[in-house]
Amino acid sequence: MTKVRALVLERQHQLQLRDIDLPQTVGPGEVRIKIDTVGVCGSDVHYYTHGRIGPFVVQAPIVLGHEAAGTIVETGEGVEHLKIGDRVCMEPGIPDPNSRASRLGLYNIDPAVRFWATPPIHGVLTAHVVHPGNYTFKLPDNVSFAEGAMVEPFAVGMQAAAKAKIAPGDTAVVLGAGPIGTMVAIAALAGGCARAIVADLAQPKLDIAKSFKGVVPVNIRDKNLGAEVKRLTAGWGADVVFECSGSPKAWETLLDLPRPGGAVVVVGLPVAPVAFDIATASTKEIRIETVFRYAHQYDRAIALMASGRVDLQPLISATFPFEDSIAAFDRAVEGRPADVKLQIRLPD
Amino acid sequence: MTKVRALVLERQHQLQLRDIDLPQTVGPGEVRIKIDTVGVCGSDVHYYTHGRIGPFVVQAPIVLGHEAAGTIVETGEGVEHLKIGDRVCMEPGIPDPNSRASRLGLYNIDPAVRFWATPPIHGVLTAHVVHPGNYTFKLPDNVSFAEGAMVEPFAVGMQAAAKAKIAPGDTAVVLGAGPIGTMVAIAALAGGCARAIVADLAQPKLDIAKSFKGVVPVNIRDKNLGAEVKRLTAGWGADVVFECSGSPKAWETLLDLPRPGGAVVVVGLPVAPVAFDIATASTKEIRIETVFRYAHQYDRAIALMASGRVDLQPLISATFPFEDSIAAFDRAVEGRPADVKLQIRLPD
Amino acid sequence: MTKVRALVLERQHQLQLRDIDLPQTVGPGEVRIKIDTVGVCGSDVHYYTHGRIGPFVVQAPIVLGHEAAGTIVETGEGVEHLKIGDRVCMEPGIPDPNSRASRLGLYNIDPAVRFWATPPIHGVLTAHVVHPGNYTFKLPDNVSFAEGAMVEPFAVGMQAAAKAKIAPGDTAVVLGAGPIGTMVAIAALAGGCARAIVADLAQPKLDIAKSFKGVVPVNIRDKNLGAEVKRLTAGWGADVVFECSGSPKAWETLLDLPRPGGAVVVVGLPVAPVAFDIATASTKEIRIETVFRYAHQYDRAIALMASGRVDLQPLISATFPFEDSIAAFDRAVEGRPADVKLQIRLPD
Amino acid sequence: MTKVRALVLERQHQLQLRDIDLPQTVGPGEVRIKIDTVGVCGSDVHYYTHGRIGPFVVQAPIVLGHEAAGTIVETGEGVEHLKIGDRVCMEPGIPDPNSRASRLGLYNIDPAVRFWATPPIHGVLTAHVVHPGNYTFKLPDNVSFAEGAMVEPFAVGMQAAAKAKIAPGDTAVVLGAGPIGTMVAIAALAGGCARAIVADLAQPKLDIAKSFKGVVPVNIRDKNLGAEVKRLTAGWGADVVFECSGSPKAWETLLDLPRPGGAVVVVGLPVAPVAFDIATASTKEIRIETVFRYAHQYDRAIALMASGRVDLQPLISATFPFEDSIAAFDRAVEGRPADVKLQIRLPD
Repeated sequence: MTKVRALVLERQHQLQLRDIDLPQTVGPGEVRIKIDTVGVCGSDVHYYTHGRIGPFVVQAPIVLGHEAAGTIVETGEGVEHLKIGDRVCMEPGIPDPNSRASRLGLYNIDPAVRFWATPPIHGVLTAHVVHPGNYTFKLPDNVSFAEGAMVEPFAVGMQAAAKAKIAPGDTAVVLGAGPIGTMVAIAALAGGCARAIVADLAQPKLDIAKSFKGVVPVNIRDKNLGAEVKRLTAGWGADVVFECSGSPKAWETLLDLPRPGGAVVVVGLPVAPVAFDIATASTKEIRIETVFRYAHQYDRAIALMASGRVDLQPLISATFPFEDSIAAFDRAVEGRPADVKLQIRLPD
Repeated sequence: MTKVRALVLERQHQLQLRDIDLPQTVGPGEVRIKIDTVGVCGSDVHYYTHGRIGPFVVQAPIVLGHEAAGTIVETGEGVEHLKIGDRVCMEPGIPDPNSRASRLGLYNIDPAVRFWATPPIHGVLTAHVVHPGNYTFKLPDNVSFAEGAMVEPFAVGMQAAAKAKIAPGDTAVVLGAGPIGTMVAIAALAGGCARAIVADLAQPKLDIAKSFKGVVPVNIRDKNLGAEVKRLTAGWGADVVFECSGSPKAWETLLDLPRPGGAVVVVGLPVAPVAFDIATASTKEIRIETVFRYAHQYDRAIALMASGRVDLQPLISATFPFEDSIAAFDRAVEGRPADVKLQIRLPD
Repeated sequence: MTKVRALVLERQHQLQLRDIDLPQTVGPGEVRIKIDTVGVCGSDVHYYTHGRIGPFVVQAPIVLGHEAAGTIVETGEGVEHLKIGDRVCMEPGIPDPNSRASRLGLYNIDPAVRFWATPPIHGVLTAHVVHPGNYTFKLPDNVSFAEGAMVEPFAVGMQAAAKAKIAPGDTAVVLGAGPIGTMVAIAALAGGCARAIVADLAQPKLDIAKSFKGVVPVNIRDKNLGAEVKRLTAGWGADVVFECSGSPKAWETLLDLPRPGGAVVVVGLPVAPVAFDIATASTKEIRIETVFRYAHQYDRAIALMASGRVDLQPLISATFPFEDSIAAFDRAVEGRPADVKLQIRLPD
Repeated sequence: MTKVRALVLERQHQLQLRDIDLPQTVGPGEVRIKIDTVGVCGSDVHYYTHGRIGPFVVQAPIVLGHEAAGTIVETGEGVEHLKIGDRVCMEPGIPDPNSRASRLGLYNIDPAVRFWATPPIHGVLTAHVVHPGNYTFKLPDNVSFAEGAMVEPFAVGMQAAAKAKIAPGDTAVVLGAGPIGTMVAIAALAGGCARAIVADLAQPKLDIAKSFKGVVPVNIRDKNLGAEVKRLTAGWGADVVFECSGSPKAWETLLDLPRPGGAVVVVGLPVAPVAFDIATASTKEIRIETVFRYAHQYDRAIALMASGRVDLQPLISATFPFEDSIAAFDRAVEGRPADVKLQIRLPD
């Protein structure tokens, strides 16, 4: 353990930049990374404002941050795909490689997974972090640290797109144009959709989404989404509907949107069970997929960014120096409609 | 139109054996079948007792019956796979072959499908019926008319098994041991499951189900199903859960049953929306499939019966002569716990 | 039958613009289309130069051309999705909707399919054609006739991309940068690949391919493809390899290219059986998919073009007036390396 | 290292029962198993008769045997699912859990896998073996050691059945009724096929195969297989063809057997590349799957045996005491047509 400076959530509502003990020893298969950029995620903010997310409660000071990119400064025994100086980004969840889920390739749903900035596991808003090499990914030269720190939230969109089993040229509907809905729309388009009909009430969010080719924005203050989807699909319906609003209200009408034989991918998590109209779903034999974080998506996300087919730069709304981390969190709490992603840069 | 004797539901609660006008002309691609055996389905009984099923209301006298087998007595122009004297069974739903759903191979969810004994379409509890040859299937010599009339309800089980995407050796849970639950369990086992843990409150139903190799009966009056599934799967959970009870209560706990990455296939239709716990489903990335009747299952069902791998004879509880059809329906209304399928035989 | 002017292949090597009897009566479900643009396909050219393709032999004069777009001038009874004046493109293959393959949704592999410009079925290098409405697709305002006539060859690429079962962010290799290889690369990228490593000997073809974002050109005169794929994938291999060269030689090394668990999609058809190294394929559990034309791809292809995610304009190398049709074919016979698609415009 | 008695292949043609040094120390996550029964596999015999299989050459004395069952006698740290006295069977391949293939769930195609009785890795025809707990599976009470030692070859059939993506009620063709072909047929039926048309020249092998319900034997000395498949499928073809003969000659006609849209699963490995007729495969859009050993099949195979849905006892042709191991191998070399599996029992 070494004392290092970090952004510590002491308890609900109380953030502090201060020294804290963190492990810095590099074991076999591990690497040590000097952090460059960390994105502020809705879950980080939620721990700040609520002190908990479901069963995960902040009971001791915890370092926040899990969307990170940096530079390799040390490599452990047996690490061959990375070397000192490599620019990298990291998956924040570390599963047990010997669990039954991991052996099946489903490491994201391994109940034993340890995830950064999820109590009691510390996050990475600090100078250095030790991490398994297998969950550390080299960034190509044309992907910046800022973009590298976007891979984590984009991977959520990628997982949703993968679960959808998109056929090339599908029409998607995305409910909700917040950061996750926007990431999902971008991933769905990159993943084969011809278009993503993105629905929200907030025009500034739709304006950002529509800058991506293939996005068809629908402001549901002005327009009936069901009617719009019917109009745009000649009455047939969407091949896949991504529910990213987390709103129970969305479930009242969302089953009208998919085509016969279509799919619904549930990304947004309402706090309570929703009303699921089985009869409507059955009449169209709708398939419903659920998503939990991501598995095997980092290399794919990076490949899409490296080839220029996905550009996440427009989603980075502002960047704060590490010393202003608390200001970054306070702005995130504001929830400005045109803010998608706020990032924090560590000192060089 | 020709006057023929049929079992007519005049209105709710009133059945009558009487003459009624039915079309008997055979067009191109069609065949005429002399009916031998017709099974009594829960939906037939429901029209009798309630006068409606959801939006389908008995507003004029209607012939009941849609699970049928018989003999070809006439073939229309262009029918090549059937000839006079062939023993056959028939799919009761006739889609529009040129609809978008049909062209995609999803004819069961073609909104234009016309289905026997679903108002205002007449059923087949009568001497003869005209039907498209494409939805008429030859029975092998070793499949009886009585078994042929079981193909329809078994096809529902087959569709559920197909939607499950069973991997060989999967463990299934089947909620509900009524006729549909039992059919689903048999189809799931024939379709590749190693075992089907069948749960119900009624021991006589479980006793019938457990006569099929691979069925593990669980009487949920005596045992906690979740604990049993955990015990039988070493804590991992079932690969697929078939919800066949139609009970909203089942949804309170069913998401505990599948393994991480497992599936739920919804066959039972509650009358109102159910409470769907997205958070639990997501944590395990559960896939949910819904089922509407069946498509492309008749030839598969018949092949399983012909090869001896599926024997549905034990499910035929009693057979009534056509003249006693009303008695057959009244017994079905009784809902004796050991009755699975009642059938009606037309005169030779 | 009506006498109309058409480009007629009288026999091998002999093309003529002349009047010929063609049916012009519109039946139920059919439409009549005034042709605007027709692309010249390699198969049209092959009938011209060889008088046959495999079992299909030119035994009587035949109108060529099957990649077409035009305007609806008449609609038959029951056609609801199209009206006079609609700009459209057409699938050249007409299956039997009642065949077993068609009912399964596999109409492209219905052995009864009748395909334009495949002896003895006439093609559409003529003023008007009568066609089933179900295989006629409305063009959005922002898709030109020239692009509409590109939908047919692009649909081949789309079918290959669909068969690949691309996961978002996959890396593809495309062997061959001819018109089909290029279409496949574009479809693979639109269908979810992060990048398509396109291999060919002809630099002008690679130069065209590399204008599409995500294409990584490899001139195999200069570079070892296997080494390049290894380098670009950190030694792992490609997720999917599209064989579009039709060269038996490609099969000597192509199984080295996919990753463990990867796929090979075979689009190119060598004239004789190729040597298939089962041991190498098995060690990596390679899946091999084959492709025959396309099914259910037109609306998807049009959606991708309409949304701006696919732009096929750069592939149209030259456009000839109808009167110069023979010149167009003769230039196609030349096989200029920078020519991708030649088109013919009918008079207004 | 401890000196233990084992069946050692000293070099090609020379087997000896003698003491040899083998590791017996149990590390974390490992177990030590007292071997009870070991099956003789064709690969064991091939090393005996040829001294090599492809690139794997017997260059030093090696213990043979990899199809084994036994009893846990020691458990290492962290092993929770097994305890001393448990009856078990073991997967003979040990992958690197941190390899890229393993993390994707594809551990069988991890190039680093170490496989029993594959030079230079020793097999298990000896008293005790140390093995990773994760690849050691508890046998239910109703599965004998002899059956437990059959799980390994049956897992090959299970992997082939899984790769086929069988839809319930499919019709399979299995080419070759040797041990692997028979295992594949049993797995295909258990995995959802209605019937398996099994083709061979040797009537004694077909007689054994046909004792399994659903097997339709075809002696290709007497009958044309293509004609039989057409007759049995009303001209449509088989849904899936399992090539288990390893004969290049089979490839001359096997593509005639699948239906349009059907699959070929290649299990038999010819020594040289075979002639693959792409044109025929493409016309029907055939999918070809290859198989390498198995992954995640042991628990599934055991579940099918425990539920009584698969009975492999009839395939055990003879059992030899350990002291007669060389006689067992010499009988295997004979290749008696009615011998499916020979087993060796270790002393109690």
